[in-house]
Amino acid sequence: MTGILVIGGAGMLGQKLTRRILSETTFDLSSQLTIFDKALPQPDHRVTAISGDLSQSGTATNLASNRPELIFHLAAIVSGQAEAEFDLGWDVNLVATWNLLTALKAEHEASAGSYRPRVIFASSIAVFGAPFPDKIGDEFLAAPLTSYGAQKAASELMISDFSRKGFIDGVSLRLPTLCVRPGKANAAASSFFSGIIREPLNGQPAVLPVPDTVRHWHASPRAAAGFLTHAAKLDTASLKERRALNMPGFSCTVAEQIEALRTVAGQEPVDLIRYTPDPAIASIVSGWPRDFSPDRSVALGFEAEKSFEEIIRIYMEDDFDG
Amino acid sequence: MTGILVIGGAGMLGQKLTRRILSETTFDLSSQLTIFDKALPQPDHRVTAISGDLSQSGTATNLASNRPELIFHLAAIVSGQAEAEFDLGWDVNLVATWNLLTALKAEHEASAGSYRPRVIFASSIAVFGAPFPDKIGDEFLAAPLTSYGAQKAASELMISDFSRKGFIDGVSLRLPTLCVRPGKANAAASSFFSGIIREPLNGQPAVLPVPDTVRHWHASPRAAAGFLTHAAKLDTASLKERRALNMPGFSCTVAEQIEALRTVAGQEPVDLIRYTPDPAIASIVSGWPRDFSPDRSVALGFEAEKSFEEIIRIYMEDDFDG
Repeated sequence: MTGILVIGGAGMLGQKLTRRILSETTFDLSSQLTIFDKALPQPDHRVTAISGDLSQSGTATNLASNRPELIFHLAAIVSGQAEAEFDLGWDVNLVATWNLLTALKAEHEASAGSYRPRVIFASSIAVFGAPFPDKIGDEFLAAPLTSYGAQKAASELMISDFSRKGFIDGVSLRLPTLCVRPGKANAAASSFFSGIIREPLNGQPAVLPVPDTVRHWHASPRAAAGFLTHAAKLDTASLKERRALNMPGFSCTVAEQIEALRTVAGQEPVDLIRYTPDPAIASIVSGWPRDFSPDRSVALGFEAEKSFEEIIRIYMEDDFDG
Repeated sequence: MTGILVIGGAGMLGQKLTRRILSETTFDLSSQLTIFDKALPQPDHRVTAISGDLSQSGTATNLASNRPELIFHLAAIVSGQAEAEFDLGWDVNLVATWNLLTALKAEHEASAGSYRPRVIFASSIAVFGAPFPDKIGDEFLAAPLTSYGAQKAASELMISDFSRKGFIDGVSLRLPTLCVRPGKANAAASSFFSGIIREPLNGQPAVLPVPDTVRHWHASPRAAAGFLTHAAKLDTASLKERRALNMPGFSCTVAEQIEALRTVAGQEPVDLIRYTPDPAIASIVSGWPRDFSPDRSVALGFEAEKSFEEIIRIYMEDDFDG
């Protein structure tokens, strides 16, 4: 594959994806690997880095003019911020996607139809809103309860329609909550799912704001990077006209997360978890998906972890430096 | 209710809706009734008519500045044209909706939150794409197979999110195929569903391009106008966060349509129907919904016909002048 562009390449997932592309022999790196983001980390010498704002007119046109064959679109305002800053969320999470798609369509037309890039879009299980069945199937409706979820769902519709018309060859991947996230806790309501594992492993106390009966849907950041590279090589003809896929993950309760932590690292880190109920967070979390039957993506060869112990061990291998 | 705006008021459904509003005593017409469209019919003297293009910058701002309390948004590029003219379809069917919503949000904010209009959006069963279950339930996914369907589904997501945030109080109604449409046959693939009834009733021959085993989902234009006025008075708190509703309708095969025509008008019109297979139309129609279980909208009091005979009789009462 020649010409790879990672939009949102400086984020946690963008960095993991970039490293994975550089390490996988199936990607031909004699051609250009470009990362695009608002602010850029120190890139690998094999990577071209471009900074800019995709919601600004002209930016998408410039990126598309290089005609990358493979585009990962990961750039987004996260859920909490999109909820607090409504206009910014729609601008970055939907208008920027629209700008990218119309710029790619213009290149497709300028090339007399020969340019038709694979576009992998990082969507989210936030497209789903309660009430849910016990397991969300592949035919369950997208009725989001957040602006972030609405923006992701609307972007999916655009990507599917531009693909159906042959302007691009797009796939939307609805990612589970990524756990264990490296780095510091953030203000996201989901932050504690990683925090109750990461902080104790690093000898720090962690707050659990919800009862340990809460069930949620997880995959490791490593698995997510794998979803993205797998989607790059997928035979999209097999998708028919349904190009938004629920990614596999592992469903477990907080109690099961804690039990896995005990199995992997003993009682000492578990003792650092303190249950401090937060009704606001409990209320938000009660509207989140708990479990899925992602039959289509499993049949297509996407793979996630099979236990929460495995998720913890991946964190320790990939990100733990304590 | 004061200040009613019908966007797309010159279309078939817009005209039926306007007449219904003028005849229903529950609408206070001491206040302004305005219809907006690209080209306008001779309006009733009680109606203010404004012409313009909602996808043009500034138009939505002007319409919103009057702060109508109740807005019906029916304006659209129809399915066949949106498929043929991709850019125009997205521009009119999505960008215009976005312009309207952001203009209403600006008025909401300028009014310090006191202005929060009811917005009734005419969506469509085109948001659904095959493969289908035998009956489409209220939790079935929107995976459209046309640009028109994608534009309607994306508009629904915006209307729901602007409503969840309290800027507007919106409801999206997924209308069945309207049958029997008055007037002339058009180029739409669905045109024959009305044509095989309307033309024979008017003494004209009609072509049936699909086998009479084809099943589809119908409601009369009168029922559709009733859906819209019912939605204007709905207690939207009961919708929770799911503001896109599958409207009721009547499911029947073409053979059952023809049998109803025989019951209502005898053998003579039936003999004017000629089966002339058109594989292209048959292929399009095979991707369309056949039947629904619209439990939510029925529970909310929306009503459609209970037989195809009734649908034919409504056409004869409302539109037949032969």
